[in-house]
Amino acid sequence: MDILSKVKKSIRGLKAYDPGLTQTKYKLDANENPYDVPAVLKKAILKKAQRIPFNRYPDAATVTLKKNISKYLGVKTENIFVGNGSDEIIEYLMQTFVEQGDTVIVPTPTFEMYRIIGVINGAKIIELPLDKKFDIDEKAIITAVKKTKAKFVFLAYPNNPTGNCFSENKIMKIIESVDCFVVLDEAYYDFSGRSFLKCLKRHKNLIILRTFSKAFSMAALRMGYMIADRETVAAVNKVRLPYNINSLSQFVAVELLKADRTKVLEIIIKERKKLYALIKEKYECVDSNANFIFLKPKTPSKAQKVFEAQSISVRVFTAGPAAGWMRLTVGTPAENKLVRQILKRGV
Amino acid sequence: MDILSKVKKSIRGLKAYDPGLTQTKYKLDANENPYDVPAVLKKAILKKAQRIPFNRYPDAATVTLKKNISKYLGVKTENIFVGNGSDEIIEYLMQTFVEQGDTVIVPTPTFEMYRIIGVINGAKIIELPLDKKFDIDEKAIITAVKKTKAKFVFLAYPNNPTGNCFSENKIMKIIESVDCFVVLDEAYYDFSGRSFLKCLKRHKNLIILRTFSKAFSMAALRMGYMIADRETVAAVNKVRLPYNINSLSQFVAVELLKADRTKVLEIIIKERKKLYALIKEKYECVDSNANFIFLKPKTPSKAQKVFEAQSISVRVFTAGPAAGWMRLTVGTPAENKLVRQILKRGV
Repeated sequence: MDILSKVKKSIRGLKAYDPGLTQTKYKLDANENPYDVPAVLKKAILKKAQRIPFNRYPDAATVTLKKNISKYLGVKTENIFVGNGSDEIIEYLMQTFVEQGDTVIVPTPTFEMYRIIGVINGAKIIELPLDKKFDIDEKAIITAVKKTKAKFVFLAYPNNPTGNCFSENKIMKIIESVDCFVVLDEAYYDFSGRSFLKCLKRHKNLIILRTFSKAFSMAALRMGYMIADRETVAAVNKVRLPYNINSLSQFVAVELLKADRTKVLEIIIKERKKLYALIKEKYECVDSNANFIFLKPKTPSKAQKVFEAQSISVRVFTAGPAAGWMRLTVGTPAENKLVRQILKRGV
Repeated sequence: MDILSKVKKSIRGLKAYDPGLTQTKYKLDANENPYDVPAVLKKAILKKAQRIPFNRYPDAATVTLKKNISKYLGVKTENIFVGNGSDEIIEYLMQTFVEQGDTVIVPTPTFEMYRIIGVINGAKIIELPLDKKFDIDEKAIITAVKKTKAKFVFLAYPNNPTGNCFSENKIMKIIESVDCFVVLDEAYYDFSGRSFLKCLKRHKNLIILRTFSKAFSMAALRMGYMIADRETVAAVNKVRLPYNINSLSQFVAVELLKADRTKVLEIIIKERKKLYALIKEKYECVDSNANFIFLKPKTPSKAQKVFEAQSISVRVFTAGPAAGWMRLTVGTPAENKLVRQILKRGV
């Protein structure tokens, strides 16, 4: 049998994701929290986890977890949907609402998975470039939604990789003007403190994504969630695989919600400001509301190597709308000191 | 915005999966292994798991896990694909190969997720009934594949919920006759000892699914895997979400592969035989190669209640091709004793 001829036409051009296994000492390329869950807490959680029956399927309805997120956010459980990472929620959204050929609108540059998952699920992606200040062109977005009867607008808030929050007024204008879903991906909310959560009740077309991967240092365990109108949650539940969230991740997330992450967040934000103060003196860059900084190295082709020579992984964009720029994750104070030394010498 | 009008037409009729939260003492409704991972081993694994950095994303390529599965099976890593449960692999297969309206062929009754996941991903499902001996009608399947240019035939081996292994010759005939993928879901392989793994090299259209949920008592942690031609694996990797398998599940699976499950499997199989010996005397039923038994209660409408009165959950089918039948998971010897007492009194 000719396997390749059986592959769905729309995905033949897609490349499998390359994890880019660089063996560096300092990982500043994936916007992870540089601080793990404190060892004492992790030990206590894993000890308590012995009571989880490994032989039984997880709670398919994630009842306890949703109750705890509900309490944490002050939002009803019927408005909460949990995914195996936000990636999975983006996928379920597409599967629920996108008919073959429906359009999905994304600004560019932004988080790549909106486009990739859209293509996998039969969407036609319309990419609208950010303006010179890396803000959205809300008029172009509204026009494109109306013209193509788009199903989704995806906006990362703050945006990845640029790190800034788009103008609140422009986003509100979009939400109020369009008859389609506006997904605000607030993965980095804990570093920006800005959210559209308060607008959910008035706007049925608003969907908010959050994650445990960043502030809660839980990237390893894959846990994202969506807050949306109950009808949206109910619709997306139609396509959810019943046991999408494993028991251990459910358990750890509930335990971590009790942990106070304020200190860790304060350190990261303080470090980001310190790093930005240096960067803006020497480089074209964007002020950040996240845990990473977007900047333009003088010699992009060499930047990766210069950092890797110090065993630091960073993300340098060599193609696409962010080509020639790089994204630096804020690390620990010691890591950031190394980074500042490199940036001072010039990259 | 009218949310319901935005839902993709093909899934509007789907119902969200209902976990059916019955608060019984004995769970014999989900084909789980009645034995958890031994407490000492679980404790040791969770202690060792403290070294996993929770703040870092999982290994997207699941390198160590695939190496260990490779060694365990004697199959190359390039032929292995790991999923967040077999459900996710079924979904990825559909996403990779099924164009809108392509047909997928399933015998019936069988594992419901083939149909549900197919519908979600735009497939047209053709259900072909099993014969009176609960075996497949291979001629009907081959004809249907050719007539509709089907993309997949899904066969559970042993079949769920009937518990029997379909005729090996008939399956081989299908594999050799069709120009489409034949997916053999060997989730219950460890209870049957029968596999098509040895046929993989000669048949590029063969795909085998296995799981850690049953023999390895790892249902809670969601871990299924596929063994297939390297081109199939490469194609499916195009649609895989990069971090689909969390770090803890990867870690636990590697540790559990070292554990000897022979004793546990022997007990379950011995118990199944003992249970079947009683059932076949009193009920219409199917001899089982799995860890569950399919039988026809005398009064199906009451069967559920009779078991629940003893705090036992069982699966009674009230609609569809298995209507009027029930599926009983083999439990611990003590649980099975209770079950036998009920069956002796009559249900």
